[in-house]
Amino acid sequence: MQTTRNWSRLLPSLPILQWGRAYKRETLLGDGVAALIVTIMLIPQSLAYAMLAGLPAEVGLYASVAPLLLYSVLGSSRVLAVGPVAVVSLMTAAAIGQHAVPGTAQYWAVAITLAFLSGVLLLAMGLLRLGFLANFLSHPVISGFISASGMLIAASQLKTLLGVRADGQNVVELGVSLLSQLGQVHGLTLLIGAATVAFLFWVRSGLKPLLQRFGLRPRAADVLAKTGPVAAIAVTTLLTWALDWQARGVKIVGAVPQGLPPFTLPLWDLGLWQQLLLPALLISVVGFVESVSVGQTLAAKRRQRIEPDQELVALGASNLSAAFSGGFPVTGGFARSVVNFDAGAQTPAAGVFTAVGILLASLFLTPALFYLPQATLAATIVVAVLSLVDFSILRKTWHYARSDFVAVLATLAATLAVGVEMGLIVGVGLSLALYLYRTSRPHMAEVGLVAGTEHFRNVLRHTVLVSPQVLGLRVDESLYFANSRALEDRINSEVAKRPGLAHVVLLCSAINDIDASALESLEAIDQRLRDAGLRLHLSEVKGPVMDRLKATEFIRELSGRVFLTHYQAITELAPELA
Amino acid sequence: MQTTRNWSRLLPSLPILQWGRAYKRETLLGDGVAALIVTIMLIPQSLAYAMLAGLPAEVGLYASVAPLLLYSVLGSSRVLAVGPVAVVSLMTAAAIGQHAVPGTAQYWAVAITLAFLSGVLLLAMGLLRLGFLANFLSHPVISGFISASGMLIAASQLKTLLGVRADGQNVVELGVSLLSQLGQVHGLTLLIGAATVAFLFWVRSGLKPLLQRFGLRPRAADVLAKTGPVAAIAVTTLLTWALDWQARGVKIVGAVPQGLPPFTLPLWDLGLWQQLLLPALLISVVGFVESVSVGQTLAAKRRQRIEPDQELVALGASNLSAAFSGGFPVTGGFARSVVNFDAGAQTPAAGVFTAVGILLASLFLTPALFYLPQATLAATIVVAVLSLVDFSILRKTWHYARSDFVAVLATLAATLAVGVEMGLIVGVGLSLALYLYRTSRPHMAEVGLVAGTEHFRNVLRHTVLVSPQVLGLRVDESLYFANSRALEDRINSEVAKRPGLAHVVLLCSAINDIDASALESLEAIDQRLRDAGLRLHLSEVKGPVMDRLKATEFIRELSGRVFLTHYQAITELAPELA
Repeated sequence: MQTTRNWSRLLPSLPILQWGRAYKRETLLGDGVAALIVTIMLIPQSLAYAMLAGLPAEVGLYASVAPLLLYSVLGSSRVLAVGPVAVVSLMTAAAIGQHAVPGTAQYWAVAITLAFLSGVLLLAMGLLRLGFLANFLSHPVISGFISASGMLIAASQLKTLLGVRADGQNVVELGVSLLSQLGQVHGLTLLIGAATVAFLFWVRSGLKPLLQRFGLRPRAADVLAKTGPVAAIAVTTLLTWALDWQARGVKIVGAVPQGLPPFTLPLWDLGLWQQLLLPALLISVVGFVESVSVGQTLAAKRRQRIEPDQELVALGASNLSAAFSGGFPVTGGFARSVVNFDAGAQTPAAGVFTAVGILLASLFLTPALFYLPQATLAATIVVAVLSLVDFSILRKTWHYARSDFVAVLATLAATLAVGVEMGLIVGVGLSLALYLYRTSRPHMAEVGLVAGTEHFRNVLRHTVLVSPQVLGLRVDESLYFANSRALEDRINSEVAKRPGLAHVVLLCSAINDIDASALESLEAIDQRLRDAGLRLHLSEVKGPVMDRLKATEFIRELSGRVFLTHYQAITELAPELA
Repeated sequence: MQTTRNWSRLLPSLPILQWGRAYKRETLLGDGVAALIVTIMLIPQSLAYAMLAGLPAEVGLYASVAPLLLYSVLGSSRVLAVGPVAVVSLMTAAAIGQHAVPGTAQYWAVAITLAFLSGVLLLAMGLLRLGFLANFLSHPVISGFISASGMLIAASQLKTLLGVRADGQNVVELGVSLLSQLGQVHGLTLLIGAATVAFLFWVRSGLKPLLQRFGLRPRAADVLAKTGPVAAIAVTTLLTWALDWQARGVKIVGAVPQGLPPFTLPLWDLGLWQQLLLPALLISVVGFVESVSVGQTLAAKRRQRIEPDQELVALGASNLSAAFSGGFPVTGGFARSVVNFDAGAQTPAAGVFTAVGILLASLFLTPALFYLPQATLAATIVVAVLSLVDFSILRKTWHYARSDFVAVLATLAATLAVGVEMGLIVGVGLSLALYLYRTSRPHMAEVGLVAGTEHFRNVLRHTVLVSPQVLGLRVDESLYFANSRALEDRINSEVAKRPGLAHVVLLCSAINDIDASALESLEAIDQRLRDAGLRLHLSEVKGPVMDRLKATEFIRELSGRVFLTHYQAITELAPELA
């Protein structure tokens, strides 16, 4: 806990002032090369994730310019690349789908409003230093949620790969919708999609070893393999144009407006804001968690660190800028940030260069995208998100901690069966409830003396010496309102079944805190023991806990004593054991 | 945690089979005397609390017969007296007020339905062994809630004491309503009420010393003083009859039907049940908590114990019986149980005798209540509940634990300003949130060696030896998802600011549990430290924690080692300190 607070830290700081002033020519080359590679990778991703969110392809490009610039100025990570990402795009589609029809101007306007609200929330959380809220999303819940989202995204792209129309917020709705359309599958579209999927999987698994055999270093081969989607886009676009596949019913991206990102404003509709608030909050938290974990992993590799509250401010500003430049909710992406890092980016200047690259693409490249088949984009999405699906967390938590397993399973099931928002809410709620349940039933052990030593161990696990007049009880949890009654119960039942008992000694070495409820419970225990002719003692109370207890009536009126060590307590109360 | 489960324990047990079989003539006298005194005390209380709940006076008597019998058969406390109590009656009035008008048959029917639902919930919680849920009501929240409820009850009785009409769910509504009626205050009613209040306060503070001076033992004086309300009722009823105060506008109880409690059924209306579910749950939990804490306190005085899950079953059955015999929600009352105990009750047979006493009263005594002024009953309520109001918890928690203080204050404020239900919900929600917040920011201390010993202490509190290559960090909290990122942050920042660091040793003596999220965090920390050329070590890991860690990849692939003691770790990694 901080006791003093530096008020200047409440204002957003400007990391650019640190790295910008010290900018050297040597880092220019690294930043430039990284920016080029990330730009090439980001173009198909931006288009695809816009499509996933139900938005026109160019909106993906718009969402990759201003946010990248703003993050470069405000972000505390040196290499994070901000823009549309898969899970946030899926959540965006789920949130907007309740308020507008995909493809309409209203739909885009709601997306802009969602980015605006998400930006405001992130910024507010950053200024109020509420970054810790993201900690309440446990790793297993995130894993379950990301895996289920990956499956949902893949399922949602099946319609485009099959050339049919289908819709739904969860696997059940999507499955029913797809099954009813199976008769209408478009053969050529399926061929393009399947070929692209196969090619992209080969690029991941087969191309890299091949490039290495041709003498490329592993990292360079890795980076080059990331440009696979661009090759797929170029080839399928050319084929569609040359063979006039559009005439044969293959859906294409079509006319993408050429030009700068437009200046846009969110809808000023309080009723809509109210309805978008929860989705915006969930999008913000998920985006923040994803972004921070990528940023932390990469920063640690160079012994740098990122500042979570500063990240909230930077992501908030990025989303606000997305809202004012025709974009939709964005965050730091995993794959592109790793590529940026591996390609040698040294400073956020790489982000600025990438933004310029995307800007040039949206100015000059869009006519070339006219014949791009939608199935190609769907294939790049499917291949990208299937790498998110990882069920090893189920096996891992099953073996390690059953309550975590339950939380993962519930998150997975609720996300797949109901949708992304319910999945997150169920996951967070259940993991908190399970944690509270666990701490409300603390492990308590009767301890006895290991003969010939001053050590005390659980009587159920070891052969130890105990006295019929003295009960030594160790509580392995901080005492607070939810578990203090468990201690009362345990002591009541021990006293009720041991007629000869005269002393109860609580061994407090594992108690890090005692709240006011637990203090009252201890008073009640002491009072009841006194009424029954017994005495309550404490041993090995921690310094900070003792500091607070000292000022209380409980310690002044305790029927027994406070012993520095449990051994002292036992030698005094049951000298026959020592 | 129980590892085996005795299936027969899932069925409700019958404590009456234990005490009933062993029943002896000697206990008959004690039980009989206690029953007589409790009956005399319970009659005015039952009438008053029925009035507080907005119900006809006789309903209070009905609610004190069958529930007492059922509790005698099923309850695990030997001396608990079950019936209408103040706080539950207030909550009942608040819950029913939204669905019916006091004084109507519908209102009574909703009260019966509420008792039914509350009984079902308690019974279900008992059979499912969910008694632990009550632990999530912290002592400070209960204190704040009970004090605020006492004030609300007293405020709600002012209208009867003043002889005006006023209504409201919280002090704001009640205050506004009363102020608008101040012109209509009925002088004689106010006189009766004020005189009764003054008399009852004198009985509490003045009569007891007087009786003792006349040679009564303190406990007998205490018990006799509890019959004060009966004297007040007798005197004011006689005066009202003799002086015909009814004609002068004093409101009286009027005709109370003579006879056995009627057989009634709850309303079978699913819509109503849905709306009553939350209030029924809150009433159940509050009633259970009040009942169990009284029962535990009294049982401990005789080295007996009560079984919380059995109490749920018994209170559930009591409430169900109240629903089928024209009553309303009941629970174990504090004052009457203490009187029962002090008057010498030995077994639940005292409860059976009390039930018979109340039954006789409802058969023969009700005509005598015709001229009883309502203001007398209001006065007995006000005096009874003002003893519930106790703000010492505010001072106590302010000094002891600021987060508990915040929870009390919020509960008090929400109960007074909004109502009983919102007060409880705010209190429980806030105390859980504050607990989670606290555990999400664990105390972490860099530790150093106390020269000449093998002990390690916080470097900020003590003069200790440290090495620039080794960081020893003690975490004073179990590691779980909400605080594992705090550990990551701390280690990241320590590593970033110490260029010479080569080893991080986590001193784990206060870590009682590591969940799957925290395990992943430790893996991430280890990976990042390894990437930066450092090693992570653990020391003093507890047995149960080590048991689980042993099977994980984390321990097998840990960059450093696991040391039994922190001293071993330091002598090995920084031999210059030893």
